[in-house]
Amino acid sequence: MRNICVIGSCSMDLVVTSDKRPKAGETVLGTSFQTVPGGKGANQAVAAARLGAQVFMVGKVGDDHYGTAILNNLKANGVRTDYMEPVTHTESGTAHIVLAEGDNSIVVVKGANDDITPAYALNALEQIEKVDMVLIQQEIPEETVDEVCKYCHSHDIPIILNPAPARPLKQETIDHATYLTPNEHEASILFPELTISEALALYPAKLFITEGKQGVRYSAGSKEVLIPSFPVEPVDTTGAGDTFNAAFAVALAEGKDIEAALRFANRAASLSVCSFGAQGGMPTRNEVEELLS
Amino acid sequence: MRNICVIGSCSMDLVVTSDKRPKAGETVLGTSFQTVPGGKGANQAVAAARLGAQVFMVGKVGDDHYGTAILNNLKANGVRTDYMEPVTHTESGTAHIVLAEGDNSIVVVKGANDDITPAYALNALEQIEKVDMVLIQQEIPEETVDEVCKYCHSHDIPIILNPAPARPLKQETIDHATYLTPNEHEASILFPELTISEALALYPAKLFITEGKQGVRYSAGSKEVLIPSFPVEPVDTTGAGDTFNAAFAVALAEGKDIEAALRFANRAASLSVCSFGAQGGMPTRNEVEELLS
Repeated sequence: MRNICVIGSCSMDLVVTSDKRPKAGETVLGTSFQTVPGGKGANQAVAAARLGAQVFMVGKVGDDHYGTAILNNLKANGVRTDYMEPVTHTESGTAHIVLAEGDNSIVVVKGANDDITPAYALNALEQIEKVDMVLIQQEIPEETVDEVCKYCHSHDIPIILNPAPARPLKQETIDHATYLTPNEHEASILFPELTISEALALYPAKLFITEGKQGVRYSAGSKEVLIPSFPVEPVDTTGAGDTFNAAFAVALAEGKDIEAALRFANRAASLSVCSFGAQGGMPTRNEVEELLS
Repeated sequence: MRNICVIGSCSMDLVVTSDKRPKAGETVLGTSFQTVPGGKGANQAVAAARLGAQVFMVGKVGDDHYGTAILNNLKANGVRTDYMEPVTHTESGTAHIVLAEGDNSIVVVKGANDDITPAYALNALEQIEKVDMVLIQQEIPEETVDEVCKYCHSHDIPIILNPAPARPLKQETIDHATYLTPNEHEASILFPELTISEALALYPAKLFITEGKQGVRYSAGSKEVLIPSFPVEPVDTTGAGDTFNAAFAVALAEGKDIEAALRFANRAASLSVCSFGAQGGMPTRNEVEELLS
């Protein structure tokens, strides 16, 4: 069992569905309301735990109802919460999602996720014995992402930086990350001056650009490789990116080579879109292995 | 102490503030998130209790976190919850409010409020001893409003029907209600063919049309009367209408004549806009009396 340390956001998604998206000053009747544990950090932690890793979630929640529900959900999914501190001066992170007219509009309130300081993250990282892979995203403060990448680089701890949601990255942080996994939109923000191919060529076996149902593209040095996704009938694509990143982390941590790790990750992600909800669709290790064999 | 029975909605307002209102497919960063007990029924019940009445809230909540919080809030404000049943087959009512760019957009999910059947309401009404006034709004099923007005009419129990949110009303229900308190928009929905004056003339001392900071207008039979509001610097007008209706109910139940009751209600409503939040601004009896004396 490999040790994966996820440093990232945990939040509660408040999902309301309505036939109509309300404009300013307008009240409309919704059809349902659900609270669903989310946040890229928590999603990737749950996905990695389901795929067989020992996962430590490093983050923060508010000392409130949602905070308790978030922690309970992580534990129920086998994620270690030793380094999840409930704080009292701010509320748990929430995402307010209106699903209407076939699309969603989202307001993210960072809350406690904004309180994950470099010191807090590094302190946790130093305490976890023998970390095989770190997995980090960008729903936490930028300086924390920078400092964790620097720490991992100097301590030879492999780290996957999933640069989502998109924001520019310091060159130093790009250099410190072992692996970078933007989607096409995020890649265009990271490398505005370069084409996909030019960016991939700069970072062989380090930059992996996910292209949804096309698959994932990377440079193997001499050539550009596209590892195609597995064709499925998607029910809900939410959480596919998080499942991909988690599975990639687990596979690499277990010593798979890059191509095998990408196939494993693609397979897990394609399974995750076959049911509702980000975490709802995340597959177990057996489910992935059965389909791969 | 008069007995007021409020039959109506109880919900939790999930209020998120953001600089920008997200469009379809867009994610924006919000600045704060708050949960605030709301719902026209609960608001009017809390307001009436603060003004010195014994108030029975008749409604439903889900058997969930918000349901518990709603019941606790009613009790903390001295509202009797003997007839508030937590149900398991649906969630508590919620209102999803995005406050952005100086205006709010709201998605209301009725949840348990939609489960307040005529039988449920009438059963409660029959059990409450000596009801001096019933106060009902329109965030509950239409047939329940119709049946409760019919019951009150046939049992000589005075009833204020606050026809909010706006929807057309059966003539029979208009006839059964003792008092009707629409605002101008709601009045235009109730009486689309009539001017304000024509509508008022049809229902002397029965129809009271609230006009925000102008005041409230009614027909005293021979003449049309405007009872002006008290001039204040509004901080937050949410809940002013609910405070007006509750104060009007309390004053009438205590035997005040219509004009005195309207002045009392205006006074209470004007105080309620001087602080944040629907229930947050609702005045106590002393506060209203001090200003009236």
